[in-house]
Formats: sequence, structure tokens, C-alpha cells
Amino acid sequence: MVSLSDLDPQARSLLEQQTIELPSWAFGNSGTRFKVFTTAGTPRDPFEKLADAARVNAYTGAAPRVSLHIPWDRVDDFEALKVHAESLGVRIGMINSNVFQDDDYKFGSLCNPDESIRAKAIRAHLDCIDVMGATGSDSLKVWLADGINYPGQDDLRARQERLDDSLAQIYAALSRNQQMVLEYKFFEPAFYATDVPDWGTSLMHCQALGPRAKVVLDTGHHAPGTNIEFIVMQLLRAGRLGAFDFNSRFYADDDLMVGAADPFQLFRILHEIVRADALRPDSGVTFMLDQCHNLEDKIPGEIRSVMNVQEATAKALLVDREALTAAQLAGDVLAANGVLMDAYNTDVRPLLAELREEKGLAPDPLAAYLASGYQARIEAERIGGAQAGWGA
Amino acid sequence: MVSLSDLDPQARSLLEQQTIELPSWAFGNSGTRFKVFTTAGTPRDPFEKLADAARVNAYTGAAPRVSLHIPWDRVDDFEALKVHAESLGVRIGMINSNVFQDDDYKFGSLCNPDESIRAKAIRAHLDCIDVMGATGSDSLKVWLADGINYPGQDDLRARQERLDDSLAQIYAALSRNQQMVLEYKFFEPAFYATDVPDWGTSLMHCQALGPRAKVVLDTGHHAPGTNIEFIVMQLLRAGRLGAFDFNSRFYADDDLMVGAADPFQLFRILHEIVRADALRPDSGVTFMLDQCHNLEDKIPGEIRSVMNVQEATAKALLVDREALTAAQLAGDVLAANGVLMDAYNTDVRPLLAELREEKGLAPDPLAAYLASGYQARIEAERIGGAQAGWGA
Amino acid sequence: MVSLSDLDPQARSLLEQQTIELPSWAFGNSGTRFKVFTTAGTPRDPFEKLADAARVNAYTGAAPRVSLHIPWDRVDDFEALKVHAESLGVRIGMINSNVFQDDDYKFGSLCNPDESIRAKAIRAHLDCIDVMGATGSDSLKVWLADGINYPGQDDLRARQERLDDSLAQIYAALSRNQQMVLEYKFFEPAFYATDVPDWGTSLMHCQALGPRAKVVLDTGHHAPGTNIEFIVMQLLRAGRLGAFDFNSRFYADDDLMVGAADPFQLFRILHEIVRADALRPDSGVTFMLDQCHNLEDKIPGEIRSVMNVQEATAKALLVDREALTAAQLAGDVLAANGVLMDAYNTDVRPLLAELREEKGLAPDPLAAYLASGYQARIEAERIGGAQAGWGA
Amino acid sequence: MVSLSDLDPQARSLLEQQTIELPSWAFGNSGTRFKVFTTAGTPRDPFEKLADAARVNAYTGAAPRVSLHIPWDRVDDFEALKVHAESLGVRIGMINSNVFQDDDYKFGSLCNPDESIRAKAIRAHLDCIDVMGATGSDSLKVWLADGINYPGQDDLRARQERLDDSLAQIYAALSRNQQMVLEYKFFEPAFYATDVPDWGTSLMHCQALGPRAKVVLDTGHHAPGTNIEFIVMQLLRAGRLGAFDFNSRFYADDDLMVGAADPFQLFRILHEIVRADALRPDSGVTFMLDQCHNLEDKIPGEIRSVMNVQEATAKALLVDREALTAAQLAGDVLAANGVLMDAYNTDVRPLLAELREEKGLAPDPLAAYLASGYQARIEAERIGGAQAGWGA
Repeated sequence: MVSLSDLDPQARSLLEQQTIELPSWAFGNSGTRFKVFTTAGTPRDPFEKLADAARVNAYTGAAPRVSLHIPWDRVDDFEALKVHAESLGVRIGMINSNVFQDDDYKFGSLCNPDESIRAKAIRAHLDCIDVMGATGSDSLKVWLADGINYPGQDDLRARQERLDDSLAQIYAALSRNQQMVLEYKFFEPAFYATDVPDWGTSLMHCQALGPRAKVVLDTGHHAPGTNIEFIVMQLLRAGRLGAFDFNSRFYADDDLMVGAADPFQLFRILHEIVRADALRPDSGVTFMLDQCHNLEDKIPGEIRSVMNVQEATAKALLVDREALTAAQLAGDVLAANGVLMDAYNTDVRPLLAELREEKGLAPDPLAAYLASGYQARIEAERIGGAQAGWGA
Repeated sequence: MVSLSDLDPQARSLLEQQTIELPSWAFGNSGTRFKVFTTAGTPRDPFEKLADAARVNAYTGAAPRVSLHIPWDRVDDFEALKVHAESLGVRIGMINSNVFQDDDYKFGSLCNPDESIRAKAIRAHLDCIDVMGATGSDSLKVWLADGINYPGQDDLRARQERLDDSLAQIYAALSRNQQMVLEYKFFEPAFYATDVPDWGTSLMHCQALGPRAKVVLDTGHHAPGTNIEFIVMQLLRAGRLGAFDFNSRFYADDDLMVGAADPFQLFRILHEIVRADALRPDSGVTFMLDQCHNLEDKIPGEIRSVMNVQEATAKALLVDREALTAAQLAGDVLAANGVLMDAYNTDVRPLLAELREEKGLAPDPLAAYLASGYQARIEAERIGGAQAGWGA
Repeated sequence: MVSLSDLDPQARSLLEQQTIELPSWAFGNSGTRFKVFTTAGTPRDPFEKLADAARVNAYTGAAPRVSLHIPWDRVDDFEALKVHAESLGVRIGMINSNVFQDDDYKFGSLCNPDESIRAKAIRAHLDCIDVMGATGSDSLKVWLADGINYPGQDDLRARQERLDDSLAQIYAALSRNQQMVLEYKFFEPAFYATDVPDWGTSLMHCQALGPRAKVVLDTGHHAPGTNIEFIVMQLLRAGRLGAFDFNSRFYADDDLMVGAADPFQLFRILHEIVRADALRPDSGVTFMLDQCHNLEDKIPGEIRSVMNVQEATAKALLVDREALTAAQLAGDVLAANGVLMDAYNTDVRPLLAELREEKGLAPDPLAAYLASGYQARIEAERIGGAQAGWGA
Repeated sequence: MVSLSDLDPQARSLLEQQTIELPSWAFGNSGTRFKVFTTAGTPRDPFEKLADAARVNAYTGAAPRVSLHIPWDRVDDFEALKVHAESLGVRIGMINSNVFQDDDYKFGSLCNPDESIRAKAIRAHLDCIDVMGATGSDSLKVWLADGINYPGQDDLRARQERLDDSLAQIYAALSRNQQMVLEYKFFEPAFYATDVPDWGTSLMHCQALGPRAKVVLDTGHHAPGTNIEFIVMQLLRAGRLGAFDFNSRFYADDDLMVGAADPFQLFRILHEIVRADALRPDSGVTFMLDQCHNLEDKIPGEIRSVMNVQEATAKALLVDREALTAAQLAGDVLAANGVLMDAYNTDVRPLLAELREEKGLAPDPLAAYLASGYQARIEAERIGGAQAGWGA
């Protein structure tokens, strides 16, 4: 049975310091176009979302930042929200712009052929930069719903030119210590063409913008069969991997808990991260969750997800790199694959329990949270008001 | 240039008689989990939906039936709705049960492990059978959102047994001149396992139920790369193809206008229909649209879709069957494929214009509708009230 | 750390008795359309293939049968081959018919429009039944390359009728204690339509044939995203799952080692097997490998694959069924999923090492084989002659 | 019915001048890993391949160049081959390097961890550059089979660094009037990771090399559901689209005749080409076929393919660009899509027949070829020798 002492000091230190950013919206309701189910205790405002997120950090010790979605998390006083977060032991992470829920954006936001709507969408991003200033966030995260549903509906290339111009205006508004990260997505909500559908497109725009523009890789945003760890490797090689949106999928952008659909894939992704030494806190890569807990409880769903990332990371850190390289150079396919599988097949849960206990945390964060009575308390307290969801 | 006279009398008669059933819900608003855009003039109730559907029939002469969705189309007096339909020149088609929009159905309807919820879902279907009686409909159309999001969430096999029992209870309530059609879907809204995911599963349940249970093939409900016309052929061979839900897709269940994404595929499907002589009005196969006009106008979107099915049908009827068979038996791959492509590459729009003019219709239904001023009228008249959508 | 004693007696017994059938062809060369690489020591005839297969059984104690492919494994004296196998401690398993490597079969075998070629293909199957008689095999395994590359190339439905007739003739030639298993495949080598593309089609033919016709599920023969364990469950429910062809895939029918691409999927499949009590030796389900070791060494590749199936099985047997059912019935999504993941995340390698030692085997079969010097011996001995491959 | 006069003079000129490059290997045998079927009359050497290719040009008037594959098309005297081509009315096009059919390349060519094998692969490309010199070709086309079958088999990033270095050495050997085009492929023959799997990777390498390195887009080399015309648009925007390998697919890299699987997609690709004015002879984009006629006759298969590209091009040239732009800017989804569909639904075969007749060609190249007796002649003459295929 492996224990913490099986990790070399550097690996152990990387594992101890790993942090995972939480999305505020994971604590609100979500669903499909068919139905959004409601749950007792769901937050009614950003302050309550932060309170729930802080619970995840309290039990895992590994989730000290919360990402906001504007306008879903718009408040009158962002300074107060920042102070509230700090009082809960967390801080504000990336600011996500949302330019897809206004009737004006029916035909796009930063790519819209109507110049006045495009200007409105650009302004919405400048507002987000203001929120960054007020909350101490250093990253603007841009995901666009832009695209078209039918061939011919709009001109694909003209949309790229508009996007180019829109992003340049937004990038110009960033201060020197702020960055933009641009997310790509294979499809949905657009059904024929999406304006930033793949990492190549996102990278081209980032290259055009400058060094403080990087790519966001959402693990659910690829075509069937795509080798995601290859893209991770390639973006790291280009120095342009800005952040992960972790989740998992069986079919489309299912937004299930990370590691739930294909834990081996998650391990392979972390292996590329470790291989490129990108687990270092100063690597510039943000590890973030982006999930929808449509059916399962939200807080424990996030705790479980943080644990899944930690387990995949611990396994990746256990890979015997020397033995791996030797087998690779010898052309010994089975031995090389075997080195990787040995690490993957190891049960690292005891090792992580040990790590938590050293930090003064409960060895099993999920059990500890469930025993805490927090869920019953919020169910009792959060009566009335409108539950937060994707629309509010 | 082909004309009506290029069709033999039987083919011409089949084309003239072909009808396409319209979904009432296509006239309401729809969208994605990200946003449902609203549009001026959208119906507020089932009566207005029927009025809009009747416009599609008025201009195409080929859409005389409207399918209802219960409870979306629940009215106090179904008899009145039926009379209203008839006054507009259409009648009520299939009745679709909807057991996925109540919080009770979070973990399923006909497959739910909670017996009381399962009983409620069965009762909802019995109510639909009552609606059939009141409206003169002879078909109960069952599509279930049932499924699970995570491995282990529920027992796959136990869910099948519950489904088996639920369907049997519902089937037993049908009268002799009524049938049940069971739709399958690859995924969505369930993300790990869907309880009726493929034609094999649907067929197995229909076989267990009896001869008046048939399979519904929705053209958007398959895995990437699936050869849909093969399934059409196979279900026809088994005598179990009950209905089509026509639409088109690039990625998942996009519900775009039929023929918009892959018109050649639609032609190949119709070719199998013609090949099996299933275009005959008494073949037992219902041709129906099931689409979401998220961005485009709804009434002209439906008109265009009816026209697309007619064009694919006309092309399929133009296939030189004798030449095709001769080339096939001779093993002449290029010649055989060439016979099919000749029909597909033919521009049948003039032929269909001719057909419409013979029926006393405008040759171009879309242009005629757009010139009619109907859209402006409903935009002016339908002020106030709640626009119909998937939730109402 | 789990040990054998953590399994209840019945589970332990099932694990001890589990056997996996090996494909003779896995020991010959294979490759892609681009290149078949050769390897020193590759068998030159079926006798040498059996010798290699027997090594896999010697080290794992779990692979006592070898499946033959006719004509690849045709020998003058099948009785001698049978005796040879027994002398090596193994016996002959299923007989696979091969009707795709003769120029005559360019347009199909059992579905060929040319009656004389179809008759030849039927005779090839009757020959296989003779081989079954001579070798003591009780199962005829049918996988067909039949299909067409272009729309229109042949008539899809006529091909089904021919298939129906061909299979009936073959089935009629089986004795009462013999069965036929029919494999389906999504695509390849046919690129437009395959005549047995999915489990529904295979099942329909099996139902038409009779109770001794069952479906073969090859884990690499599905569309992207297909939930394979659902099909396993459904075929078990129908009493028609005859055999597995285990392998793994990232893209198409890659034929990689089972468990190499998605070990979690393999576990879920075994979970459905255990759930349906189909691990029992008398369940009628044959577990077989069907792999291509294009780059890795063949004998250790097979050993590794047997171990992978055993590990997935052990994990499936460790699932706490009572806790799982309780969580499922309570609608506790996270707890139910957690029960499954607990078993999956367990490192069962020590448990299996223990099991092997109790049987008098080396705890690590792969290491033991590699230390045995067998590979060096066959490389030295097998000089000259033509290496076995897919064509010989 | 449209005629040539419906095209404006510029469009007509572009259509008249369009040329499609033929692959020499399409005239040899090809197949799948299961079987390569042989055909009477198949060429035995590059001279005979050129003779067959010249027939395609003779009947279509649009295929004046033939691309070679080295070593498949290696001859002692390339000067003689060049003269032979010219005597047949064609010339040598791109030179394709082949570094995947030697046992040395089992673990890769330009990415191989063994430096001596990597050097050999680089030399093979320098040899191709010599062939370019001797034949007057100005383009080196690089497609690599490099990749790995199992996670861990080799280091993904180290392989990129080796690729980078290898390509740089090759690029340095090109003269100023020569270019390199780099093809990407989703998967096959590698099953876990391919070293140039997508356009993003190819583009990154081209950017690193310099302005005379461009991307090759093979229409069969993408993940399911990929919007290929979007990539066309994006590469044109980046000024890096070097060539097309046209073919079509239903599943993987099926290499069927272009336009056979999804003619609407081919039209959409050509629409982006026309939109970007990249049909101009000096646009730098080479239109090339890359197909495998496994079942159909090869020469007429190529003729048909050239015709399919011409038909898609003619339709794209018929798009009413002004009306399209107006509808797009007005947000009229149905009208914009309708403009595109009007062009697509037009039967352009008469127009192309007219074009051919003006050039002094038969209006139906396929019929004319079939009537020529060429096939019977080569079947009679080409007796003995080894038929050309992928291995020779």
C-alpha cells in the first residue's frame, strides 16, 4: 500500500500545494433544455454561493478560489463580496463573461453582424474587467455561445474578423497584470458552426492578441474520440495553456463530475501536466471545475470532484519516470505502458487521507461534510427567494 | 428538366397523397439549456398553435394532421380543440406523452424505482389515451427522458423490468383500433445511460407488447456515423416501423429542419421507404416532423421542412429501379451508385411546383406564405399572455 | 489492502473458475492496411500458435481454450491438432469462419447476390462445422465482412433476405449440442453499409434461427459513445449473449489489448455480468479475446490482457451490492456511484497474486513469462517458413 | 435549367480553369487490412499508372497533373517518367514521401526515438526533393504514419520536438521555388496518439518552418462531426491552406470517391473556397484526389470524382452572393440558408456538359470513357507482372 513517503519530496510538495478553482454556478441549479430540477437549500445569491463553495475548501483544503459568472453573480457591491469571500477563507478567481442570455444576442455577441450589438457585447466584457478590479481577479475568462445553426446563416469568415476586432478591443483594456483566457467548444448551443470550435482557432486568436492571452481547455468540449492529453501537451509546448475547465462526459458537453466518465483519461491528462512540470503553482495553468450537478447534491458533488482531481494527480506523480523513459527508448511497448498502468492501478486514497490528516483535515472530506449537518442547516434557512440558476 | 410526366402514374399518385404530420410544439418557443429566445407572434395556447399549423397545410396541401404534446397542449375541452382543428382544415394526429417536467420525475418516470412515481407516470399515459379518445387520435407516442447520469446511479436491468411492466399496463388500456409507438434516443437528457437508447431496445419492448406496438425513428437520435436508412430497412422488414420524427442534426439531437444538415441522407431514407413500398397511405408509417426552430421563424420553417421531405420523396420516386437492380446484380458498383445519384442530382423543384399548381396551390408555398401577411397579423394580434414553449 | 478473504466464498469461486478463451490469430502477425510488421519467433503454423497460446494458460491458469480461424488454421489432420492442444494443456474453443479473403467474396459472402458464390460461402461454414466435429468444438462463430461501400451498390433488404436464408441453411447443419454465435460490427471493411452492423440486427437473425443462436459482442464494434454495458445487460436479459470478443479501442476497431483504452468501461461491463450472475461457468457466455498485437509482443500481450480481464472481474466482484441497492433505492446519486467507484478504485492486484499462488502459479504471470526464456527459444527455433498472419 | 450563360464571366473562367490533381496510387490496387482485391488491367508500374491517369485527363480536360508516391513510384529514370507524362498530356504534381512501410519505421519515422532511424526517414525526404528536381515538381507532400498505440508507449512531447527538428532539416533542403505541405490525420494507423492529428498541430509546425510550409486538408481525416469547411475558412484566413486531399467517408478514413458520402458537405467546402477567392489558379491551393477504389473500377472512379468536384464547384459559383449577404445582414436565417440551398439544389450537369463541349470534349466523360474500349485493351495487354498496390 502506498503512502505519502512513496512520493519524492518535490512530488509531495506539488501535491500538497495543488489548488482547484470552483465555479460559483455549480452551487446553483442547472439542467437540460428539458428540465431544471430544483433542490432544497440552493443558494439564492452570490453570497450564499460563496458560503457553499467555502465548505468545499474547508473540507478539502484545496479549493481556495471561486470563479464568478457575470451577470449571474452581479452584486451591487463587489468589494463587499470580496470581503465576504475572504471572511470565509476563499478569494475570487477568474471572472467569466456571459453574453448569451439577452435576446439581443440571438445571432451572436462578439461576432454579431449588428455593430451595435457587438459593441454591447464588448462593453459587457469591459464591465467584467471592472469586476476584476473590484474583486482582485487577474483573469478574464471568455467563452462565447456565438455560432450559427444553418449553412449560410452568416458568413463564417466575416464572423472571425469581427471576433478578432472585438477581442483586440477587450484585450487592450486589460492592465499589465491581467490576462484573458479564451475557451473553445466543439458545438452547443450553435448547431452548424461555432465561432471558436477548437484549440487551433483559440490559439490563433491568442497569438494575434499577445502574450497575456491563453487557451482554456474544457475537457467536455471536443469531438468524439479526441485525444485531449495530446492537446494539453501541445498547448503547454506552445506556452499557451491558461486554464482547465474540468468535468466529464459520455456524449456531448455533459458537464458531469470530473473523473466520473473516464478516470483513466483524467490520469493521462495529469500525466502530461506532471511531465511538463506544469503542476508548479507558478506554471500559469489554472485548474478549475466547470460542472453541472443536475441530479446529485451540489456541495458534495464538488467535494468529490476535487478529490477525483487529487487522486489522478497523485497517481500521475507516482509514475516512475525513469523506468518509463527507459522502456520508451528501448521500444518496449508493454513495459512502457505497464509503468503508466502501475501508477494508475495504485490505490492512492490512503496516501491522500494521510496528506489531509497532516494538514489537520478529516481524512475523508466527503464523509466529514455529510456528517457536518450543513445541508440540513441551509435547507432550513434558505426559505423563500429565487434559487440561483443559469438564468440568475 | 423533369416534370410530373416523368413519374409513372403510381409514383405520381404516391407523391400527391403523401402527408406529413406537424408537431404542435414546433410553433412554440424552444431553445437550448443556455437560452430560449422569444419571438413576436408566438402562440399562447394550443388553439393558436393549431391556427399556425393550419397555415402550413394551407400552403403545402400536405400537412393535414397536428400532433399534440400532453401536458403542453392540455386544454379544458379537447372536443372543442378537435372542432377547432377541423374548422381550420386539419385534424389531431398522434398524442405525445410528457413525463419529464415534474420534479417527481427527477429519477425517471416509467422506470422510476419509486413505485408511486412510476404509477403516476403510468396514469399520465392513461390520461393521454383519454385525450386520444376525445380528439380522435389513434396513436399514443411515447418518448421517455428516463435514464441515469452516473454509473451505478440505478440498476440498468431493474429499470428495464419496470419499463416492461409500465408499458404493458399502458398497452392494455389501448382499444383495438389504437396503437402505441415507442421512440428511442441515443442520449439526452440522461448522460450515462438512457433506458430506450436504440432501435433494438425499442423493438424488444414492442415485440413483448404485441402487434399494435411499433418503433418511432427520430432521425436525430443516433450515435455519430449510424446508417439510419439501414435501420429504416430493418424495421420495415420486421413490420415494426411506426413513425418517423423528421429533423436534422450535425452533432447531437440538434432538431434542425429536416434535410438541412444532410439532404443526401434524407434521400437515402426515402429511397428505402419507396423500395419497401411504405409510401402507400395504408403502410402504417407516419411521417412526422419534430423540430425546434430556435432561431428561424417557425411557420416558414415548417413549410420549408415539408417541402424538403417532398423533394427527397420525389427524387426517390425518380430512381430507375430496373436499371438499379440490373447494375446491382451485375456487380457494377459505379453504375449502381450512378443510378441513385442521377435521381438525387435531379432538380425536382419544378416538378413539385407543377404538382402544387394542379392541386390549386401556389407553386412556391414559402413565397406565398411570406406574401400573405400572416406573420404581421399574428404579431399584431398576439399581444400579452405567455408564449407557448416547452414548459407550457 | 484487499485480499482474497475480502471476497465472499461464492465470489471467490467465480473468480477462481473464470476462463478466457484465446484467439489463435493473436499469435500471428497483424497490422493495418498500411503495413504488417513482422517479428522474430512468430508461429508458422497452427501447431506453433497453440504452443504459444498454451504458454498464456501455463502462466495465468485461466486461458485453457484456443479459438481457431478457418482457413487460417486449416490443417490436414484436425484430430492431430486436437491431440496436440491437449498435450499442451489446452483445448480447441470456438471455430471462426472466414469468408472474406477470396476474390470471389468481393461483393459479399452469405449476402452475395451471386447465388453460386453465396453457396460457396455456405459450404465454407459447413466445412467449419466439420472442423467442430473433428476438434470437439461446440460453437460456430460467424463474423461477416459483408457490406457495401456506396449507396445503391446493392439492395440492403435483399441482402438481409439472402443472409436469412444462408444462416438458416448453416444452422440446420448444426447438431443439437452445437450452437452458432453471430457477431455484429459497426463498420469495416465495408464503408457505407454493413449487413450485420448492430446488436439489434444480430438479435433479429438469432431469434429467427432458434434457441441455439446467440449474439457475439465485440467490444470494439460500436459507434462512438455507445454504452456497451447497456447492450450486455439487454442481451443477458433476452438470454441471447453468446460470447464476448474482448479488446479495446480509442477510435474504430483498433483491436488493442482489452482494458488498455478504457479500463473503467471494462469494469462496468463486468459489473453487468456479475449483476446478472453470468460469470457462472454454465451461464453460456464465453469470454474471449480478439486482439491484434501489431506493435507489442504477442504472448505477453495476451497474458497482460487475461490479467486485465481478471482485475476488472475482481473489482466487479468486490462491489458492495447491498449498499449499492440501498443507495439506488434511496435516490442517493453520489452514494450509489460511490459504491461502484470504491470497488473500481481498489487495487486488486495483490488479491489476484494471492489467488495465483494458491493455484501454484507465479504471482506475476507477466514477469514469470518474461523470465522463462521462451521468447528467445522460439526466436532461435522458428527460422525459415512463412510467419502466420491474417492471410495464412 | 441553368446553362453556362448563367455564370458571370469571372465565375465561368474560374470553372473552366479549375484543375484537379490525380494520385498515381489510385490506379493501383488498394483495400483494407482484411483483403486487397485484384482487378484485371491494373498497372504494373508508374508508367502504366500515368497512362491511366492521362485517360482521366483526356475525358475530363481537368486533371493535367499526377502526384507520385515515393517509393511506390520509384523508377530508375525519373527524367524518362517526366517525358512519358508529357507525351501523354499530363505532368508530375506533388511528390508524396512514404516512410511507413519499412520494418525500421515500426515506432515512427520523423518522430522515432532512435536517431539512426529518424535520420533515415529524413534522408527519404531528401530523396523526394531530388525526385522533385528531376520531375519538375514544386511541392513535397508529407503525411506521416507516426504515432503510438498505447498510453505511455512513447513521450508525446519528445516526439513533437523530434518532429520539429526533422521537418526543419527537410525544409532547409528545399529550394526557394519549392514548398512543403504537411498533412494531418485524426487516427490510423496509430490508435492511441498520432503525431500530427489535427490542423492546429500542422499549422504550428508550418508556422515554425516558414512561409513555404502549408497545411494539407484531407477531407477524411477528422473526428466525427467536425465542420470541415470551417477549417478551410480558417486556414485560408491564415494563408496556410496548401492543398486538399479530396475523398469521402462515412466512418473513418474510408477514402471513398469525393462527393459520394456527403455531397452537401463538398458543396459547402467549395463555397468557402469561392468565398475566399481561392479558386483562382494562382491561389496556392492545390485540389487533389486521394482515394482508394477498393471495389469500383479505378479509371472511371477517378473520372466520376473529378466530375463530382466540378459539380460542387459550379454550384458554389452559382450562389447569389449579393442576396446571401443581404439576408445574412438582415438576420433572415431562412432566406440566407435558402440562397445557399437554391444553388445546391440546382442541377448543374447540363451546364458542365456545355462547358465540356465548348472545350471539344464529350459532354459525359464517364460514358465516353466506357465507350472507348480502353479497359478491355489494358485487360488484354497487362498480362503478367505484379499489379501495383500500396506495397509496390
